[in-house]
Amino acid sequence: MKIKDISEIDLIRRLSKNFHLDKTVIKGSGDDAAVIKYTRDKYLLYTCDMTIEGVHFDFGKATPFQAGWKALGRNISDIGAMGGVPKYAVVSLAISPGQKVSVADGICKGLKSIADRFGVNIVGGDMSVSKNIVIDVSLIGEVEKKKLVLRSGAKTGDVIFVTGSLGRSIKGKHLNFIPRVNEARRILKNFKINSMIDISDGLALDLNRILKASCVGAHVYESAIPLSKDASVNNALYDGEDYELLFTMSAKEARQFYRTILKKIDTPVSLIGEITAKKDGYKIIGEDGKIEDMKIKGYLHF
Amino acid sequence: MKIKDISEIDLIRRLSKNFHLDKTVIKGSGDDAAVIKYTRDKYLLYTCDMTIEGVHFDFGKATPFQAGWKALGRNISDIGAMGGVPKYAVVSLAISPGQKVSVADGICKGLKSIADRFGVNIVGGDMSVSKNIVIDVSLIGEVEKKKLVLRSGAKTGDVIFVTGSLGRSIKGKHLNFIPRVNEARRILKNFKINSMIDISDGLALDLNRILKASCVGAHVYESAIPLSKDASVNNALYDGEDYELLFTMSAKEARQFYRTILKKIDTPVSLIGEITAKKDGYKIIGEDGKIEDMKIKGYLHF
Repeated sequence: MKIKDISEIDLIRRLSKNFHLDKTVIKGSGDDAAVIKYTRDKYLLYTCDMTIEGVHFDFGKATPFQAGWKALGRNISDIGAMGGVPKYAVVSLAISPGQKVSVADGICKGLKSIADRFGVNIVGGDMSVSKNIVIDVSLIGEVEKKKLVLRSGAKTGDVIFVTGSLGRSIKGKHLNFIPRVNEARRILKNFKINSMIDISDGLALDLNRILKASCVGAHVYESAIPLSKDASVNNALYDGEDYELLFTMSAKEARQFYRTILKKIDTPVSLIGEITAKKDGYKIIGEDGKIEDMKIKGYLHF
Repeated sequence: MKIKDISEIDLIRRLSKNFHLDKTVIKGSGDDAAVIKYTRDKYLLYTCDMTIEGVHFDFGKATPFQAGWKALGRNISDIGAMGGVPKYAVVSLAISPGQKVSVADGICKGLKSIADRFGVNIVGGDMSVSKNIVIDVSLIGEVEKKKLVLRSGAKTGDVIFVTGSLGRSIKGKHLNFIPRVNEARRILKNFKINSMIDISDGLALDLNRILKASCVGAHVYESAIPLSKDASVNNALYDGEDYELLFTMSAKEARQFYRTILKKIDTPVSLIGEITAKKDGYKIIGEDGKIEDMKIKGYLHF
C-alpha cells in the first residue's frame, strides 16, 4: 500500500495512535495545537507546520519574505485557534547550497516581521541541505485555562461564526494573511467560545472537524458565507488556506456579542449557520432554501 | 553570493542576528537548546533538528525505524547536553505520495521506540509532500535551574571528559546511538559540570564551540581520545555524528567524580585533556609529545 492510497486523516491517525502520552498532556494530536500542563492558571500550547517550496509556495509567485511570513503565520494561526498567545518558535530551514544567500535573508526577514508583529521569540533553529526549500516551524504558545478553546466543545443550538472572508486565497492571501490571534483574544476577553478551528483546508472540511470532535451536526447558510473578491461559494467551501477563524458560541452569548463587541473589532465576523443535533447531519442551505448535504472535501496533501 | 559561499556558522549568525528576544528568553540560539523562563525552580529547554533522506540517512543503509530513531535521538541528545530531561515533541514528516505506507509506519515505530525509552510525549505533528523524506522534530525539555549547563561555562584548569567512543559513526552508530541523557543526569546529581555539548560535528569542532563560548583554550591528549572500533584519531576528531557528551569539570570535582561515580556508570567516561587560558590556544598533544594546533574542521552542511 502506498501513501497516496490512504487519506491524510487516516494516515495521521494510523501513525500517531501508538504514541504514549503521560498525564501532563491534556490534549495530544487532533486539535490545532497540543495542550500541556504548565502553571496553575495556564496551559502550554505546542504545534508545528512544514512549509515546502513547490507545495505551499512557489518562487515567481511568492517572494522569500512571503514564504517566511507564511511559514510562521500558519503556526501563529493554530495557536490563535486555541484561544492562546504565541510565544516561542524554533525554525528548521533546508536550502540548496546553490541558492542565493539573499533568499535565506528574505525568508528570515519574513519570519522576523510576523514574529515581531505577534511578539514571538524565535529562539533557535537548524539548517540543512535540500533541493527544494523546506521551512519547518514549531511554536509554543500559552493560554489561560479558562480561555482554552478546543474543537470538541460545540453544542446543539450554538451559532457558527467566521472571521474575514473566504475563498481564492491562492490569489495572494495565503502569502499575506494576518493570523486572527488578536480577534480571538478580544472576543475571549468577554465571551465564551465553545469551539474553534482555523480554516486551513476549507470551510467544509474544517467545520466537519468541529462537528466530528463535538458529535454534532450543522446547518450552513450559503448566502451568509463571506466571499473574498472574485470567490464563489465553492471557492469559500473548498479552497483552503484562508487562515480565518471558525468558531461557535451559544445563541445567548452571540446576541450579546453582536450588541457590544462586533463593531469594535476591525475584522468582519459573519454568522454563517448553526450547530444542530448529530442526527440532523451536516447541511448547506442554498439561496433558494434548498437543503443539501455538505460535500466533505477540501485541501489535503494525500 | 550563494549559500555555499558562506560558512554554516556565519550563515546561521547572519540569519538569526535580527530576531528580537524578550526578557523571558535566558539563552537563544548558540547552544544545544534555547533556555526559557518556566517555573521557580526550572527552565524550559527548546530545540529542533531536521533529518533528511540523502543527507542524514539513506535507505539501503538505514531502515525507516532507524531514520525515526535518529530524528528524535538527535534532539534528545541536545536536551541531554544542557543537563535536561526531554519531555514533549512534535514531528513534521514530509514524504512522497508514491512511498510505501510501511516506510511511514517504520519511521513512527522508530520515533515511538526512542520516545518511550526516554519518556518523551509525541504530542502532535504535521504531514506534507516531498520527494525525499524530511523528518523535522522539535523537542521541549526541562532542567532544574541549578543543573543547567551551557557551552560557555568552561574555566581554565577544568578537565575535559567525553562519554563513550568516537569516530566512524557512519558505520552504524549514527543510526543506533543512545543519547547520553541518563549519564548527564547521573553525573549532575552529585557534581557540577561547568560546560557541555553533544558531539554532532566532530570532537575538534564541538570542543572549539565550548572554547569560543567560554573564551578559553584547550590541550587535548591524542592518546587519551577513546576510539570506536576501526576508528583513527582523525576519525574521532573530524567525523561527527557520535552524539556523545563532551564536558568539563573543575579538577577538584573531577577527582571526586573519578573516585565515586565513574564505575557506577555503564558508559565509559574518558578524560581527554584540560582547559587552558585562551592565549595558550587550542592544541593537540601527540603520542610523541609533539604539540600542534588543532585543525578546526568537521562535519558542516555548507
